[in-house]
Formats: sequence, C-alpha cells, structure tokens
Amino acid sequence: MRKHITGYSNPTVKYLRSLRDKKHRKRAGQFLVEGLRLLEDARASGRVPRTLVMAEGREHALLGQLEADVIASGGEVIATAPDILSKITGKDNPQSVAGVFDEWDTALTTLDRKAAPIWLVAQALRDPGNLGTMLRTCDAVGAGGLILIDDCADPFSAEAVRASMGAIFTVGLAQARWEEFLPWLRGGSKEHGGQLVAASLRDAVPYREATYAAPCFILVGNESQGLPADYELACDLRVTMPMRGRADSLNAAVAGAVLAYEVLAGLEE
Amino acid sequence: MRKHITGYSNPTVKYLRSLRDKKHRKRAGQFLVEGLRLLEDARASGRVPRTLVMAEGREHALLGQLEADVIASGGEVIATAPDILSKITGKDNPQSVAGVFDEWDTALTTLDRKAAPIWLVAQALRDPGNLGTMLRTCDAVGAGGLILIDDCADPFSAEAVRASMGAIFTVGLAQARWEEFLPWLRGGSKEHGGQLVAASLRDAVPYREATYAAPCFILVGNESQGLPADYELACDLRVTMPMRGRADSLNAAVAGAVLAYEVLAGLEE
Repeated sequence: MRKHITGYSNPTVKYLRSLRDKKHRKRAGQFLVEGLRLLEDARASGRVPRTLVMAEGREHALLGQLEADVIASGGEVIATAPDILSKITGKDNPQSVAGVFDEWDTALTTLDRKAAPIWLVAQALRDPGNLGTMLRTCDAVGAGGLILIDDCADPFSAEAVRASMGAIFTVGLAQARWEEFLPWLRGGSKEHGGQLVAASLRDAVPYREATYAAPCFILVGNESQGLPADYELACDLRVTMPMRGRADSLNAAVAGAVLAYEVLAGLEE
Repeated sequence: MRKHITGYSNPTVKYLRSLRDKKHRKRAGQFLVEGLRLLEDARASGRVPRTLVMAEGREHALLGQLEADVIASGGEVIATAPDILSKITGKDNPQSVAGVFDEWDTALTTLDRKAAPIWLVAQALRDPGNLGTMLRTCDAVGAGGLILIDDCADPFSAEAVRASMGAIFTVGLAQARWEEFLPWLRGGSKEHGGQLVAASLRDAVPYREATYAAPCFILVGNESQGLPADYELACDLRVTMPMRGRADSLNAAVAGAVLAYEVLAGLEE
C-alpha cells in the first residue's frame, strides 16, 4: 500500500532530505539513491530499498516490480508530488523515483581477498566523483572492490553512487585507517598476503615492465598531496608511469584505472 | 596601480560574477580562473590575465610578480574584500585571487596534427570534470590536445579549468562539429592524415593487440550514449577493452586515458 505525502513539512520529507548531508547519513545509517536505473542495478544485486519514494503520475513497468519487491520485503512505498521529490533530492529535474537503503558494513573483515586478483585502494580520496569512478573501474577490470584508507569522501553520497553507475552495489567496499589496513594486508597467507603497488617517482620500475602478483592491491593517493612517503615505502612495488608533460601527475581515478588495466594484462600473461 | 572595489553592486563585480555563466562567457569571450596555482600555470604558458582580482590583505611573492605582469601587459588589477571575491566566484572559501582571460580561438585550423603523436577526441562530453581530466591526461601522455566534437561541456568553465590542473593552458584545444572534423582529419597528407581509433564492441580488435599509427586520434563518446554508430564506423580502428563486470563501460575520461597510455606504449615499441 502506498502512503501519500502532500506537504513539504512532512517529517518523512524532512528525514529523506536530511540524507543529502553526510552527518545525517552516518547518524541514520541510511542513504538515498536516485533514479530507476540505479535502483534496478541495486535490485539485480539483491538490494531492495527500505523506502521507495515515487513521483505521482510517473508509472513504469519496472517501477511496479520494484514497488512489489519493496512491499514484499516489508518496506514502505511513498507517493508524492514531483516538486516534493525535487525538494528531497535537491535537483531541479529530479528522477521520478528514489530509494532509501541501509548502509552496509564496510569493515575490512567483510572482504575476501582471494575473491579477486585485483583490488583498488584509495588514500584520502576527497572527490566523490573520483570515488564512484574507481568503483566503476573495479567492476570493469573484475576487481574485488575498493578499499578507502584514512579520510575519504563518503561512498554513500549521491554523487559517488551516481558516478559508480551502480558498481557501489556490485563490488566490494571497505573503509579503514592505514594502521588497520597494513596489518590486515600482511596478515594473509605467506604466499598470497597481497602485493601492494603504488605509482611513484621513488626508485620505481616502469609500470609496463613490472611483475604483478595476485591479489594485487593498487594504491592511489590523495588528489592534491599524493601518497604520504611512508605509505609509498611500505609498498611491495613502486611503479612509474610516463609523464610527458609539464605536470607530473594524473587524475587519481585515471591513474588507478591505467594501472589496473596494466595489472589485469600482466596477471593474464 | 590597483583599483579598489568595495561594493557588491559594483558593475565590475557583476560582470566578473556573470562569467560563471556559460552564456555570459560566450558573449564576453572571457573566462575566470581561480587560484594562484592555476594563474601561475597560465603565466608559465605565456598567458597573462586581462584583469586580476585580489583579496585585500593576502600578500604573496608570486602574486606580486603576477600583478606586475598584468600591469606591464596593460591589464587591470583590482583589490577587493575577501567576501566580494567570494561573491564573484560563488565559493564560500574562495581562493585569494582570480584572473580574467580572453578565450582563445579553438578552431581546428589552430591545431598542427604533426605536433604530437596522440590526440584525444571527445564527442558530446557533458561533464566538465571529465573534460578537464582529459586535458590533464593529454598533458601526461604528451598528446597534442583535446578536440571536442558536437555539443560538449564548456572547456572554459571553472570546473573544467580546475580539473585540467592547468593543462587548459598548455595543451591544444579545438571545438568542431563532426561534419567539420572528419574532412579536416581526412584532409591531411596521404601517409599521415591521422588514425581515428574508438573503443567499441563492434568487430573490434583487443586494444593491446592493435597496431596504432601516429598521429593517432582517440575518440571517446558521450557519457551515457557512447558514440553514434556512424561515428564508430567512420573510425580506422575499433578496439575493445576487457570488461569483466556487470556493466560494459568505463567512465569516459578513464577509457580515454587507458587507451592513450596503450597507444603511447604501442607507438614507442
């Protein structure tokens, strides 16, 4: 059964709107996903929203199925005016539907490093678009997922979720301090604890001549500072990529992807 | 000599503020660049702002040099309160300085295709962050520049300029319709008109097994639609990249960069 909401000042509207803010997301442990396409990606991955908010008068076959799933799983379906949905999402031209999901556990212990040959690791990644792009790259190269080290953008922000093109629902995700990550990485089996690789200018091997080993963890640093020196030195392998221009850096998500595709090819040789 | 501006409603403040809007940028033929770092990149590339706007009380040695250059080239220097600069840039924590530059000619005829072995070409690229990231990738791989086909984001927007990390000032930039681009490309010399390469799923060669030839033009399509079929078919080479996940696409700037690094390696073998 749908619940109809007509007022801007309805407490549910206020709550949903508050999920645009990281502080409120963390307090609630929930996040908002906008658009039928992302909600379908979630459903294909077995994730059904707790609450579905639909703009009235925008019927769609897939939406009917989604609504049925939400109700079957004990969730709530809310129908409201398009301009209230606009108020919730903060978009002038909102999608016709949004869903509220519980955030999930992103502890390192939820990851199985043997599940995939490649992992991306980002340190202090501040841009949610870069974060989402890296999740999407994980999907493309068949990586196990993305591990966020230190203070990164929130992977459950609308921008990160959107940039992930749904990969947030399909690839692994963990958040950890460096002091937790390194012991976790080194705590694996002797043969395959994991190879930690960073792009670096420090005693580095050309990235196309390096020998990569699975599971290979590709470490990318903060957008403006790069990696701290001691993080770089803790890596098993430092590789260098050609820099032919005036600057000596790439966008973080781009650097991670170029390396990930090289590692993918290297592991398959 | 510095001109001091104290009022929000000053016409110069209004004009500078209007440059945040694409329509006004195109009418004025000018754009605004925020931050000392980007302004220094511009200066290193021989581009001096027409107008320099500085927040009062934020002295800096490099800023003094920049100010001198602006005055020497007949430009104007404006000193104002930090909150007026904030109003101009629309940022809560504005940079302490911004500069107004004339947009430059981005006709295809301004490019010398023999100047570089690699070029990036983006079709209907809508995200200014992706656009700036591609300019930055051009710098990194030593590409001649970025050619924007059909309706793309504005390369002179604040977001594109920022994402380019200064590469907007150092790499080539052209804007053209497909109907202009293709004859220009094919109008080169018989041997080296240019090889047009697209990532594709259509009768494509694995991207690491393909033979690339300079000047190689790497064509990337719109973020959500990809390339139109006839654009793909007009390419000299269609290459395929591994897609191991649920989705069959990468972020546009990421796809361009992975291909560009492969072409760079291929051309050097």
